Amino acid sequence: MSRFDRLPGTRDFYPDEMRVRRWIEDRWRDVALRYGFEEYDAPVIEPLELFTDKSGEEIVEQIYSFVDRGDRRIALRPEMTPSLARMVAARSQGLPKPIKWFSIPRLFRYERPQRGRFREFWQLNLDILGVAGVEADAEIMAAGVDALRACGLTAEDFELRYSDRRVLDLVLDGLEIDVGARSSVYTALDKLVRVGEEAVLAELAKAGVPDEEARALMQTITGRHLDALEALKLPTERLEREVDRMTRLGAYLAAYGVDEFCVFDLTVVRGLAYYTGVVFEMYDRKGALRALCGGGRYDDLLESVGGQAMPAVGFGLGEAVLIELLEARDRLPVGPARCAAFVIPVSADDRKAAMEVLTKLRGAGVASDLALRDQSVAKALKRATQASARAAVLIGERERESGRLTFRELDTGNETMLTVEQIVARLSYGTPA
Amino acid sequence: MSRFDRLPGTRDFYPDEMRVRRWIEDRWRDVALRYGFEEYDAPVIEPLELFTDKSGEEIVEQIYSFVDRGDRRIALRPEMTPSLARMVAARSQGLPKPIKWFSIPRLFRYERPQRGRFREFWQLNLDILGVAGVEADAEIMAAGVDALRACGLTAEDFELRYSDRRVLDLVLDGLEIDVGARSSVYTALDKLVRVGEEAVLAELAKAGVPDEEARALMQTITGRHLDALEALKLPTERLEREVDRMTRLGAYLAAYGVDEFCVFDLTVVRGLAYYTGVVFEMYDRKGALRALCGGGRYDDLLESVGGQAMPAVGFGLGEAVLIELLEARDRLPVGPARCAAFVIPVSADDRKAAMEVLTKLRGAGVASDLALRDQSVAKALKRATQASARAAVLIGERERESGRLTFRELDTGNETMLTVEQIVARLSYGTPA
Repeated sequence: MSRFDRLPGTRDFYPDEMRVRRWIEDRWRDVALRYGFEEYDAPVIEPLELFTDKSGEEIVEQIYSFVDRGDRRIALRPEMTPSLARMVAARSQGLPKPIKWFSIPRLFRYERPQRGRFREFWQLNLDILGVAGVEADAEIMAAGVDALRACGLTAEDFELRYSDRRVLDLVLDGLEIDVGARSSVYTALDKLVRVGEEAVLAELAKAGVPDEEARALMQTITGRHLDALEALKLPTERLEREVDRMTRLGAYLAAYGVDEFCVFDLTVVRGLAYYTGVVFEMYDRKGALRALCGGGRYDDLLESVGGQAMPAVGFGLGEAVLIELLEARDRLPVGPARCAAFVIPVSADDRKAAMEVLTKLRGAGVASDLALRDQSVAKALKRATQASARAAVLIGERERESGRLTFRELDTGNETMLTVEQIVARLSYGTPA
Repeated sequence: MSRFDRLPGTRDFYPDEMRVRRWIEDRWRDVALRYGFEEYDAPVIEPLELFTDKSGEEIVEQIYSFVDRGDRRIALRPEMTPSLARMVAARSQGLPKPIKWFSIPRLFRYERPQRGRFREFWQLNLDILGVAGVEADAEIMAAGVDALRACGLTAEDFELRYSDRRVLDLVLDGLEIDVGARSSVYTALDKLVRVGEEAVLAELAKAGVPDEEARALMQTITGRHLDALEALKLPTERLEREVDRMTRLGAYLAAYGVDEFCVFDLTVVRGLAYYTGVVFEMYDRKGALRALCGGGRYDDLLESVGGQAMPAVGFGLGEAVLIELLEARDRLPVGPARCAAFVIPVSADDRKAAMEVLTKLRGAGVASDLALRDQSVAKALKRATQASARAAVLIGERERESGRLTFRELDTGNETMLTVEQIVARLSYGTPA
């Protein structure tokens, strides 16, 4: 119908869709502020090199990139963490620690558009920098759970699965898997939920992992729990340290009241190259959708972008899969935006007086609209109903002379003659916006 | 200091800067909703052709564009109106009229970075579609004035200058200036404030306007008021219609209570090719800064992108010059974000109990933070003050046994023993966030 379609994998947000996005973003922002995080943002366009070094293979292949007229290689950011690391690295001395920041960035990924995956999308990003202990991990994970609870989801709807790269590295060390192959091993294991064991084994073989070790690795992590480590001969002291860390984390999650959402699961790996400790994902319980959220600890990233060394943990929670889940559970907010009053001039001569009333209502904080075309009162009333106004305010000769306006409640049809001040009083209670 | 700098002309928003951006965006959104507008958004990436046909020369030169791997010519949107027109054109039959939409888009312009001009920036966009009369123009202009008033600016700080392309076309017709050159003439005249009369005359000559006509044109528009048209021999009927339209618009602006902000001024032209009627700009009164806002009527744009013909009027109001103006007038909001409570475990053994208290406070809607590292109470109190918390909540052995927590007001140092419920009551009054 239109000559210019939008690009594949992008979305228009008409008011109905925008209301949902805004509703989600408001809830996310509310949770972040309640947890004492401060909001930040960075440019959508960043130097390509910021991402190519630090992220996993998969993400690099999917970066939207181009060369600008100044011959710079530019990326549309595919994730927020490298920009955050760049910002903190640039000022790390001057920022009081811990740094607790959040952002709701617009991100881009050049990949085949599919259900729940778009080329342009939004995330809630929440990070704590400057704390090495699992105390920060627990705070971050609890905030992630609350960001979904705030949207009306419960422990019946979703779960948070977590593991730790240090536990996985203990397994890889025990199996004597080459340290140089680790990044490819993480990428391969991360696909387990999506592609299955055989495909992962094939990829591990490509990464140079001998078949016997690959199968032992697979058996261990699909055992999911820490007990699965017992079959391997692992150094006792390191194993105890890791078990103790995971035990403390579990106790903290219980103290935060989110333990019913959280499951330790060795198959959680995360594809990104920069994780160094706890890693976690949130999934719908039915397992029908992609991960809602992914995050973890990245203690080396800041130093690697030229900053002071600083421990860090955070997550990204996307809106696209969340909207799918809310739709599937019939939990999306409904109803068009309401304005409180819709002002109608009875004839063209009443227009200026109508504008004055309108201005008084808006000045008193009452969301108000006006019939902008000269039309019959009946047509204007229809428009007021379409706009879901609570009341129509009519102004004609009689009203101008008496100083009282016809106040018509649109759901009942009741009419009363009221002053502007009385209308403000009636409408300023219980109206959104 | 950092290996990866951000790109020239882009900005990082650290929490202090983000708080200002959020403060402005919240005020803008509040005004738009109070005026009965609904929010929408479109992709940042759009087909390049959407902009090259419909916008002025200047903006096309400044578009960030690239070819993606699918061989599509892509633009980072430099303005919002063409995307809006595309969206409305795609669904125009199904949308009740008038359409009153707003957006706060992220936009991009590839130009030399300079004061108040960035390569990535934000605007408030407000548009009414489906109303041909100046009633909609007045509504839009009043909303523009209120979007700045909501940020604390007064009629002493800024003004709205307006004119009408139909009046300008009447002058150009009267001077028999070639219709084919009109787009270049608009672009040239639009630069008057920035480059001065001589430079505009040179550009008009380049556009093929004979010197005598160019000088007459210049004299007329720099006369600013409608009286300046009297020197030209213009067709009476058309002139009367235009004068009547402007008179009615002036009366409506008075009815909206914004007449002290508004000045009719023939030098206002706007560079964009698609304007067809009223055009306007907002400037700081001291004239030290670039335009804060530009807008106007674009009745032909929808049809030209393949939609149903539909009259339309709107504006874009940028944040960059507004922030400069607020800074110059010392009106920027100050102070870091406050969390209400900062919870401190006296020793590591109290940590789980502290997390439970924290979770209760947050659950009751009290923005709360926690000392995440095991450290002395003195150090934790310092951190609480840095975070601008209103109170510290200490929990040690004594508190765990008594079920009452040490509640320390950070401004006075007063300490009381309170239950969690009492703390919630004390802190849920008068706390931001």
